[in-house]
Amino acid sequence: MPEAFPESGAPFVLEEIMLADFLNRVRAEKPMVHCINNYVTANDCANLLLACGGSAIMADAPEEAAEIAALSDALVLNLGTPHPRKIEAMRRAGQQMNRLGRPVVFDPVGAGCSRLRDEAAMMLLENVRFSAIRGNASEIAFLARGRRASHGVEGEAVDGLTEMARQLAQVWRTVVIVTGDRDIVTDGDRLYFVDNGHPMMRSVTGAGCMLSALLGAFLAAGLEKTLEAALTAACAMGLCGELAFERLGPLDGNAAYRNYIIDAMHNLTGEQLEGGARYEAFGE
Amino acid sequence: MPEAFPESGAPFVLEEIMLADFLNRVRAEKPMVHCINNYVTANDCANLLLACGGSAIMADAPEEAAEIAALSDALVLNLGTPHPRKIEAMRRAGQQMNRLGRPVVFDPVGAGCSRLRDEAAMMLLENVRFSAIRGNASEIAFLARGRRASHGVEGEAVDGLTEMARQLAQVWRTVVIVTGDRDIVTDGDRLYFVDNGHPMMRSVTGAGCMLSALLGAFLAAGLEKTLEAALTAACAMGLCGELAFERLGPLDGNAAYRNYIIDAMHNLTGEQLEGGARYEAFGE
Amino acid sequence: MPEAFPESGAPFVLEEIMLADFLNRVRAEKPMVHCINNYVTANDCANLLLACGGSAIMADAPEEAAEIAALSDALVLNLGTPHPRKIEAMRRAGQQMNRLGRPVVFDPVGAGCSRLRDEAAMMLLENVRFSAIRGNASEIAFLARGRRASHGVEGEAVDGLTEMARQLAQVWRTVVIVTGDRDIVTDGDRLYFVDNGHPMMRSVTGAGCMLSALLGAFLAAGLEKTLEAALTAACAMGLCGELAFERLGPLDGNAAYRNYIIDAMHNLTGEQLEGGARYEAFGE
Repeated sequence: MPEAFPESGAPFVLEEIMLADFLNRVRAEKPMVHCINNYVTANDCANLLLACGGSAIMADAPEEAAEIAALSDALVLNLGTPHPRKIEAMRRAGQQMNRLGRPVVFDPVGAGCSRLRDEAAMMLLENVRFSAIRGNASEIAFLARGRRASHGVEGEAVDGLTEMARQLAQVWRTVVIVTGDRDIVTDGDRLYFVDNGHPMMRSVTGAGCMLSALLGAFLAAGLEKTLEAALTAACAMGLCGELAFERLGPLDGNAAYRNYIIDAMHNLTGEQLEGGARYEAFGE
Repeated sequence: MPEAFPESGAPFVLEEIMLADFLNRVRAEKPMVHCINNYVTANDCANLLLACGGSAIMADAPEEAAEIAALSDALVLNLGTPHPRKIEAMRRAGQQMNRLGRPVVFDPVGAGCSRLRDEAAMMLLENVRFSAIRGNASEIAFLARGRRASHGVEGEAVDGLTEMARQLAQVWRTVVIVTGDRDIVTDGDRLYFVDNGHPMMRSVTGAGCMLSALLGAFLAAGLEKTLEAALTAACAMGLCGELAFERLGPLDGNAAYRNYIIDAMHNLTGEQLEGGARYEAFGE
Repeated sequence: MPEAFPESGAPFVLEEIMLADFLNRVRAEKPMVHCINNYVTANDCANLLLACGGSAIMADAPEEAAEIAALSDALVLNLGTPHPRKIEAMRRAGQQMNRLGRPVVFDPVGAGCSRLRDEAAMMLLENVRFSAIRGNASEIAFLARGRRASHGVEGEAVDGLTEMARQLAQVWRTVVIVTGDRDIVTDGDRLYFVDNGHPMMRSVTGAGCMLSALLGAFLAAGLEKTLEAALTAACAMGLCGELAFERLGPLDGNAAYRNYIIDAMHNLTGEQLEGGARYEAFGE
């Protein structure tokens, strides 16, 4: 990525993407995001959505999933702590949002870890059109190749990950976001690497879930530019991880860090985002 | 409301209500509150109950709902993240508490947002006698008028809200608490407006749920004066929102704010409550 | 316990137990702990596991319980917010871990409070071999004697508790940890009293659940010495409660305290643990 403020001292303006615009639109439009989420990180996801300017509604019963979706500006399906009824709720809510033309984000938590999750992931891919899919390396590898995980939800090094992400995006006509040391954001054609973030984010449960929730808000407020909106969300989340790290005192640990990440999102300005976003764009 | 400390410098003593008495009784009696709660805010509700001097037991299976209720001093039914089995647990626990003559609080989260929630709310109103019902404007409007929500759980401006709250309280012989810019607390006859609180409370998920949980503790410790106990809980919650706001540093956001609200409740003194409560009483 | 640093100034080395070794092994081996947990404290348990150097995977559907267990280094069964399907998941995951020879920890939250929990606890005891059982006095009394609780999950004074814990450990060939003013840790033969901890831990929901989760990580990393690993976990948790208390400022309450406990675990060093652990060993 070019320097935000090059030597001349004049601010460098990206021609096509102003990340701050997406943040400002989220703050102005206050999208409500229907989250069908795991119960471990539900509270953090809801507070992160409020921090970015949106809000959350959580509802995971099939009886009400489609109705709640219809009241919402975006839908995020998070496969953590799954059970069959929740999976059915995901299908119904997802199809409702497809009918309404509103964005649906998929976070295949633990895909590759159990038959229940694998079959749910494939069923949802086949029945719901996703605007974006966000996962770690092993989850994306499972979706792209059917490769099974060997050690849980934490993710592993995966060879050829960028190519997998690109193919997955092409096959399902979606934007794929893979979080890791460098995040990958691609629509199968264009590709970005995001260098924001901090390794300590791995010590917070739900950092990935929070990004998925954030994607819901950014896609709702940036519908016509899904790839750029997703890139902005990935940069914003990573930048908040950096800002939170700088704030840590000597006695602070991962509980403080979690709070500081959400606080950083609450206080994030367009200027901070433009100045702090670090990504590299690759051509077609 | 009259000034807590009028010009003479001597503390002004309200003749009928000493809010501090209710707080002191909660601290002395340590009521255990059975919460059938949504999973998004369950942790915050449990910690807020501990902060005020009570404790929480969470149990939402119909198989055990009545037994857990019977061990508890109050019951709070929170309609967030509903599903049919949890709704049946609410009915059983509620009827058990009615038999035992102990307080039951209803928080109709998202009533008006889906048929599942609407039918559950009406079924519970018809089958359980509530000591208090707390909701935002749109939830109360649904209970009072069957008016459907247009935008989720966050609440909306509603005309004639005070009259609706009063009627709802009369029809169901209960105390109704409506949270908003000014909270309304009424038994259908007497009416209070509470001016405590801070707009930033809207940026914390579960601020309303926490007040509902708190109502459980205050009603358990103030049974014979339900309206005054509810008024006290509303003032205490709002005041904690104000105290928490004063504590915010430049890097703090809504995660810090959530923690500061709970901390403020933990440290709240009777003097602070008497001095900081701001409400207006209307006659019969 | 003897002073960690006796008069001579030379560090006193316990002959048989170096608590720091267990902590270092957890940090080195990074055990992944499958938690079938209540939803109230799930987030705190996951963050505490990350704080100690491990990680959590939460999964409570019977359809995937055995598979998730097989990917994990330890299993923790927490009986809070139970329902029949989750209990069945506990049985399947527990039996899977028994087949694989990996540690299973049982936290009988609220045993003695409802028939559902009582029957689940007995069914699990009969069908799953537990490496450790952790509860408060009333939960342990129920498991040992079938004595029913009279006031919820908070625990009560129980006469003859040490003897009950010892018998329970003998009958089920397990390590029993009873948390209270003094924690008891026993394998039915050897017995330790742990004096770490602080009364304010009672004001945090899930302090017990967090210790149970921690036990999973410590047993996974200290398999061959279950009793000593459990003792270390109990000391570490209590010590973090003490360190967190020292950190409290005048406006801090139980929300800050919860965060400080997790932060203290994140920053806990072997030296702190060796220097701060306070326990007494009793012979056979």
